[in-house]
Amino acid sequence: MIRVEVDLAERSYPIFIGTGLLRDATVIARAVKSKQVLLVTNDRVDPLYGPTLETALADRRLHKVVLPDGEAHKTLDSLYLIMTALLEARFDRSCTVVALGGGVVGDVAGFAAACYQRGVNFVQIPTTLLAQVDSAVGGKTAVNHPLGKNMIGAFHQPSAVIADLDTLHTLPPREFTAGLAEVIKYGLIRDREFFDWLESNLDKLLARDIAALSHAIRRSCENKAAVVGADEHESGERALLNLGHTFGHAIEHAQGYGNWLHGEAVGAGICMAARLSTRLGTIAPTTRDRIIRLVAKTGLPTEPPSTNSPESLLDAMSVDKKNRDGRIRLVLLDAIGHASLRDDYDPEALRAVLSPGADPLAA
Amino acid sequence: MIRVEVDLAERSYPIFIGTGLLRDATVIARAVKSKQVLLVTNDRVDPLYGPTLETALADRRLHKVVLPDGEAHKTLDSLYLIMTALLEARFDRSCTVVALGGGVVGDVAGFAAACYQRGVNFVQIPTTLLAQVDSAVGGKTAVNHPLGKNMIGAFHQPSAVIADLDTLHTLPPREFTAGLAEVIKYGLIRDREFFDWLESNLDKLLARDIAALSHAIRRSCENKAAVVGADEHESGERALLNLGHTFGHAIEHAQGYGNWLHGEAVGAGICMAARLSTRLGTIAPTTRDRIIRLVAKTGLPTEPPSTNSPESLLDAMSVDKKNRDGRIRLVLLDAIGHASLRDDYDPEALRAVLSPGADPLAA
Repeated sequence: MIRVEVDLAERSYPIFIGTGLLRDATVIARAVKSKQVLLVTNDRVDPLYGPTLETALADRRLHKVVLPDGEAHKTLDSLYLIMTALLEARFDRSCTVVALGGGVVGDVAGFAAACYQRGVNFVQIPTTLLAQVDSAVGGKTAVNHPLGKNMIGAFHQPSAVIADLDTLHTLPPREFTAGLAEVIKYGLIRDREFFDWLESNLDKLLARDIAALSHAIRRSCENKAAVVGADEHESGERALLNLGHTFGHAIEHAQGYGNWLHGEAVGAGICMAARLSTRLGTIAPTTRDRIIRLVAKTGLPTEPPSTNSPESLLDAMSVDKKNRDGRIRLVLLDAIGHASLRDDYDPEALRAVLSPGADPLAA
Repeated sequence: MIRVEVDLAERSYPIFIGTGLLRDATVIARAVKSKQVLLVTNDRVDPLYGPTLETALADRRLHKVVLPDGEAHKTLDSLYLIMTALLEARFDRSCTVVALGGGVVGDVAGFAAACYQRGVNFVQIPTTLLAQVDSAVGGKTAVNHPLGKNMIGAFHQPSAVIADLDTLHTLPPREFTAGLAEVIKYGLIRDREFFDWLESNLDKLLARDIAALSHAIRRSCENKAAVVGADEHESGERALLNLGHTFGHAIEHAQGYGNWLHGEAVGAGICMAARLSTRLGTIAPTTRDRIIRLVAKTGLPTEPPSTNSPESLLDAMSVDKKNRDGRIRLVLLDAIGHASLRDDYDPEALRAVLSPGADPLAA
């Protein structure tokens, strides 16, 4: 088992990464310390891993909420369901909410833990690659509003994260691939060596080789922990974790959530950010193409969908948490391994990369 | 104008107390610093003070949400309405939510400010005595759940509080009286001198004499600021601010919200806490009677309602944020000016004070 620390003074917490962790009562006991435990999961994950975790928590006062699977259920209605379960169980402030599932379950359950009685303990047990490398770490919780993704939420750090690699075996290929978009992101924004490693080891990752997965998840968590430790509330560096996300959120929003997966939209968004960076002159066309080739090799989309007009995407981008005084601020690349938050791009260049077919790869 | 500081390091903020503040553009500009401003108020306060404040904010991008008046609207639905208004206005993280109204408006608007994009600026302009002396100060925000009051919420400090005494002139007598319950509370839990002053000056307060009001609001805010500054997240001393509230919440909950006012329920709750303290032997019967007489003189109820059984109140008390491991923890009095959080009382003594007519006043 690997242990990565997220260093946030009195709110520091461990990320446990390894195999067989869900059925390891010692690990579960180190992470979940309350007598009162509400397990929040979804109807796809619950039959696969619910019983294993419930066995490890058999000595607690355990209640369970099973949400329907999918981004469409990342809503205030789901929050209300969880609140009702906590109140019906008569849980007090000493309880722990445990999220077992992907990013949606973690975000909703985390927001519920942030709000219940103004804040209770929270443990993340991510079961998707995307959640293990990104959304389960760092304390961002939220639900969606029909007018914008993640617009209602809180910063609420978990007290532990358990990433059991075994859960990735049951992940559908499309969801596995979606998680790789966030892995590539870490290489691009702050870890050139990791980007090189990804280029060399992508085949092993796609084959879900345990050693390769273990390294990729560890490096991703280490990078995320370093960024979050330096800037918990996104006043600066943390915004760089949004590489590809402003584009990606706009794609998800314009299409309606649940069409492309979040990671797929981020994959295309990373390529769009790379194209805009080249048009701004900060990375060479060959660097841009190298990035797009790695994204393509994972199986992720590299172009925005043709079903949405540039106008509809621009409109969706104008509602973004990084924006200030009406300017769309974007994370752009200065090099592989270095990014910055900018609003000094040419608006026409932005428009251009919002359509499919801009800047085709050199033969 | 009096200025009281709430000292919370980088989240410190001023409370401005005085007359004519709402139409004082300088004071409003010191408190509200954003270009983007969402004013949240209710349909009773808006016609009285909305236009004055809107004039003082005429140079901003101002949007407004008018909620229906009343505790019944302190819900996730109202939160959703505010979120929709913020998103339709396309406000970003630099915006400010301004609450103009009583405790309900402040609690809902504050929770919206806590959650919108994971936290934006918040300014409280309380227009009831209860909000000016208590709920607008200290950063507790929340909405109710049908199974419990204030169960969904956040700690989110305002960046300023403006208590304009002029707004108290239009306050209905019943609401004014309700606010006095919280004023008396400060004397009881930590300020014996203030309690003595209240006994001597209650007639002036009830006549809404500006000098008396100004002193009572100032002392209340100074006491609250001291408690919140020492224990922002209620890990210790802050719980003492709940004197009378566990009883009060149970009354409100058992009756259905909107029957007794919060302050009325707290008034009765303070008397119930005094009776239980005497039964526990920590305050003399004469002290208990002195407290009950002051509460009675304000016009607040001093007995629980006869419409609810002790069982129904006990049941409601079992869902309280101070409870741990199923024990009901209560704020009880050791003397006038000193309180403590206890669960070592005789359960039969608690039962006894839940019925009207326990421990009648000596003739």
